[in-house]
Amino acid sequence: MDVQQLLNIVWTCISAFLVFFMQAGFAMVETGFTRAKNSSNIIMKNLMDFVLGTLCFFVIGFALMFGGDNPIVGTTGFFNPTSIDLQQFKDLTPGVFMIFQTVFCATAATIVSGAMAERTKFSSYLAYSALISLIIYPITGHWIWGGGWLADLGFHDFAGSTAVHSVGGWLALVGAATLGPRIGKYKADGTPRAIPAHNIALGALGVFILWFCWFGFNCGSTTAATDTLGSIAMTTNLAAAASTLVALIITWVRYGKPDVSMTLNGSLAGLVGITAGCDVVSNYGAIAIGAICGVVVVAVIELLDKKAKIDDPVGACGVHLACGVVGTLLTAFFATGDSLKLLDITRGAFIKAQFIGVAAVAAYCIVGGLIIFQGLKHTIGLRASEEEEIAGMDISEHGISGYADFPLKSDH
Amino acid sequence: MDVQQLLNIVWTCISAFLVFFMQAGFAMVETGFTRAKNSSNIIMKNLMDFVLGTLCFFVIGFALMFGGDNPIVGTTGFFNPTSIDLQQFKDLTPGVFMIFQTVFCATAATIVSGAMAERTKFSSYLAYSALISLIIYPITGHWIWGGGWLADLGFHDFAGSTAVHSVGGWLALVGAATLGPRIGKYKADGTPRAIPAHNIALGALGVFILWFCWFGFNCGSTTAATDTLGSIAMTTNLAAAASTLVALIITWVRYGKPDVSMTLNGSLAGLVGITAGCDVVSNYGAIAIGAICGVVVVAVIELLDKKAKIDDPVGACGVHLACGVVGTLLTAFFATGDSLKLLDITRGAFIKAQFIGVAAVAAYCIVGGLIIFQGLKHTIGLRASEEEEIAGMDISEHGISGYADFPLKSDH
Amino acid sequence: MDVQQLLNIVWTCISAFLVFFMQAGFAMVETGFTRAKNSSNIIMKNLMDFVLGTLCFFVIGFALMFGGDNPIVGTTGFFNPTSIDLQQFKDLTPGVFMIFQTVFCATAATIVSGAMAERTKFSSYLAYSALISLIIYPITGHWIWGGGWLADLGFHDFAGSTAVHSVGGWLALVGAATLGPRIGKYKADGTPRAIPAHNIALGALGVFILWFCWFGFNCGSTTAATDTLGSIAMTTNLAAAASTLVALIITWVRYGKPDVSMTLNGSLAGLVGITAGCDVVSNYGAIAIGAICGVVVVAVIELLDKKAKIDDPVGACGVHLACGVVGTLLTAFFATGDSLKLLDITRGAFIKAQFIGVAAVAAYCIVGGLIIFQGLKHTIGLRASEEEEIAGMDISEHGISGYADFPLKSDH
Repeated sequence: MDVQQLLNIVWTCISAFLVFFMQAGFAMVETGFTRAKNSSNIIMKNLMDFVLGTLCFFVIGFALMFGGDNPIVGTTGFFNPTSIDLQQFKDLTPGVFMIFQTVFCATAATIVSGAMAERTKFSSYLAYSALISLIIYPITGHWIWGGGWLADLGFHDFAGSTAVHSVGGWLALVGAATLGPRIGKYKADGTPRAIPAHNIALGALGVFILWFCWFGFNCGSTTAATDTLGSIAMTTNLAAAASTLVALIITWVRYGKPDVSMTLNGSLAGLVGITAGCDVVSNYGAIAIGAICGVVVVAVIELLDKKAKIDDPVGACGVHLACGVVGTLLTAFFATGDSLKLLDITRGAFIKAQFIGVAAVAAYCIVGGLIIFQGLKHTIGLRASEEEEIAGMDISEHGISGYADFPLKSDH
Repeated sequence: MDVQQLLNIVWTCISAFLVFFMQAGFAMVETGFTRAKNSSNIIMKNLMDFVLGTLCFFVIGFALMFGGDNPIVGTTGFFNPTSIDLQQFKDLTPGVFMIFQTVFCATAATIVSGAMAERTKFSSYLAYSALISLIIYPITGHWIWGGGWLADLGFHDFAGSTAVHSVGGWLALVGAATLGPRIGKYKADGTPRAIPAHNIALGALGVFILWFCWFGFNCGSTTAATDTLGSIAMTTNLAAAASTLVALIITWVRYGKPDVSMTLNGSLAGLVGITAGCDVVSNYGAIAIGAICGVVVVAVIELLDKKAKIDDPVGACGVHLACGVVGTLLTAFFATGDSLKLLDITRGAFIKAQFIGVAAVAAYCIVGGLIIFQGLKHTIGLRASEEEEIAGMDISEHGISGYADFPLKSDH
Repeated sequence: MDVQQLLNIVWTCISAFLVFFMQAGFAMVETGFTRAKNSSNIIMKNLMDFVLGTLCFFVIGFALMFGGDNPIVGTTGFFNPTSIDLQQFKDLTPGVFMIFQTVFCATAATIVSGAMAERTKFSSYLAYSALISLIIYPITGHWIWGGGWLADLGFHDFAGSTAVHSVGGWLALVGAATLGPRIGKYKADGTPRAIPAHNIALGALGVFILWFCWFGFNCGSTTAATDTLGSIAMTTNLAAAASTLVALIITWVRYGKPDVSMTLNGSLAGLVGITAGCDVVSNYGAIAIGAICGVVVVAVIELLDKKAKIDDPVGACGVHLACGVVGTLLTAFFATGDSLKLLDITRGAFIKAQFIGVAAVAAYCIVGGLIIFQGLKHTIGLRASEEEEIAGMDISEHGISGYADFPLKSDH
């Protein structure tokens, strides 16, 4: 192999390792922002997400996503993904491309656990988790990145605002709505009660880990060492900064004090939002996308909490779904003129493609999510019993406390 | 230097940085899975492991490992390692090869602290830690990776299931056995009592960090940018996933609930097991090795705990020793036909070489460990006093609490 | 672009990502080493440091630092940094060089939050944080790295012992002195009271993260893939190890027990100290610099605490200021003869240049810091009210507890 190819391999491998490490970030965010009595259970869900994702994507998912030219779904390579005749296998070797795709798949799966935290049966969570990596993610992935119909239409989702984040986000929304709110989340009159995070420092560590790894997620989606890596890193970073600042200011104005968890979610919102267009917008365009996502994440989290009464303990729908959708759409509005030329598309056609892509993925994920979660609800059951939920998932599902040496407040 | 060489340097440096970061992973695993009253002491042991390992390996260890062609031990380069006439120094520069080897050495040292946690005197721990990096690790390292007799025999240990993990594991076993169990670990009738982990989230963070860094450990052991990086990343990841899933299932069946710490140890078990053969087995071979390690780790941890009555607080022997041995042996059974050709060895000779290597390293480490730990026991003393152990190592060794603002449960 | 350039881009990007991740390290160090009731506030300060740093450096700071040949300050590129005619933009692309410089700037800003922890008003902290990234850091940065007068003089600060760490350190000192000590820090007779760290494991995790990322900080400051990366990694690592060991021994001898937080600060001290000269000293020179920094950090932290009565909760001045200064000066004494030839400077001239650089940066930062902090003190106010400080910054500034599920000791 020539040196350029080996450099592409090194770069893509390192990016894949960083995207793997997002699992640690999600685990810390979801654990830190929920209650101590459920911390081990959240950890286990995050771990098993990745484990099942790895195995299911290897045997089935990869083939559905990359196995051939059918516009709807891959058709070759089941149980033997390295047998697929794929240009990326020649460019990067099968192993490099497969590990990179595996860690992306597992990211989509893991988004859901936060929204369904503190009340989902472990066994049914595992079933859902296997299904997203087996079927849901690979099919929309095929449409967008596997040579399917959305790619043909000009839909542009560089690193996965839609393919990863909104896919995870739609399932999170359907899952949380199907489950219903945690016990005690809403008063008799329907007003929401705040259930506080148990470990802000750990949750914040998760956000820092995710921001760090997002450089691998976005810049690595080149799957090659190119002269665009730096500008992608800049747009990614500026969007995250702008979004964080806007979320801070909004909560400061609205609540009288700058809100910690909302500001941290603001960082993730900007990162999700810039993911689709990080390669085609300018630095100021990135700041604009970030700032808009900072507004959107606060608004959607409040809306779900207060109006829709959908209990999403960590704000996953506000971050991954809302900003995934918004970021994908804004890509078409903020793409630079030069980028449009490179993509060989008019702005009008670009806007249309982005809307069609968002709508199609939404429809597919909502239907798929309803089938999965309603199916689980009416078979093995989706939700822990009331006693289990009150006792905490750590003790009821795993027979332990996550903090055995510390007394916990009795009403939490 | 030409670009290929510089690319090899970049790749090996980044891999070394990742392997360094395993120290954080071990520190979090060992702290999280033991008691709050010993958390600072565990941190200090992990930190000083690396510090002493760095200095001792620089002045003496590196020379013993890489100083010349003697089949048993290196003989040149003491106090001046850059003076050694080493091909890797020409390929990679002395600094790159030395930093890479330093972080590997320190990994072996740090494995032991978990098995000896919560009762070992800090001063004698430092003495042990210096000795492993000065003498123990470099000599078996010379046999395997320094051009010594095991390398000549065809023994294959790509990234160190034996050279790093089982060396650390044998010392962990001898150390834990020499120390004896923690106070309260066994009831009067000899049945073990579970001493629960104090911070599952932190321990799990450690596992995620280790998994992340293991990509550097295994893929980086090429010490060059090659077309095999991706397949090594895939086998590494698949083995870890398979092992985690098997450990989850076994504990679920045996204990009625999926066990958190055993499942997390399952991840590490698969990683340790695949380390020797990650470059020579197929993806399905990796899944098989991982699955076997998932069984082995649960069985060996139970066996040590219940039958052998060796108190290993974090399961280090089950993970690093048992799966290091098993993974090394399985490499010969699961190596692909193409790999055997490349290694220019028959399967029978390969199996024999692996068994000889495992046995020789075992014999050397057990004898070396007995000399060190018995020597320490009968000179400066190996174990903290009963009062110190009950008070906790944090207060007795360092005069602080690891969690000064939190009340701790009095019986822990 | 040719492959060498693309390799330089990949290397510099990955280093920038690692330097970004230092933010997580600082956040964990500062949170872990202070009290639980202020943990969320520290997190927010660290997060907003980076956010404001990113935005302010993009619009103004970068232009002041790199905008043209004026020896005192950059004069072009405001609000449009990519328009600057910069050789590094041609070598690396604008995005790569800008993201690399952004994360360095944010590191300087974040050093200050530790010294001013547990009593600084959030709003005035944000104002300070914006000003350091807008004005303070970029101007001394221009002198040293932007083609300014110190660079012309032969001042050598490879990765920023002065440009980053002592700039942050001087501001930390001025800030902490202007604020005054925390309530309860000094008894009526002036003797200091230890205010213990609330989470040693988290603080230690921060130190491990910083050590890991320092490889990116120092080795990455080549901004190119060169044959010197390995030797820089070695000097960095050896200095940190030596400094840690010396700090451990000193505290063991002086206090009777090895001190945990001082030893962990010892690691950071060595890293700060070697940063200026990591490219020009030998391995043994690095050990010497590290060992000296291990002495310096303990002495300066004690001096500030006991004699100067400046309350620096995490020891930021001892680490970043003292060792930044000492490391910069020691570079001239320990630079190898070959390095002096490469730098084309005599040792006498080198020593003189280092002293001038340290003094000039000190003068500028002290004056700048006094203007900022006195200005804030006499306008919006620098310090939280007594009630707010006693209640904790988490509840008073953000309306939450960082550990909502845990009872906290009432007197902390």
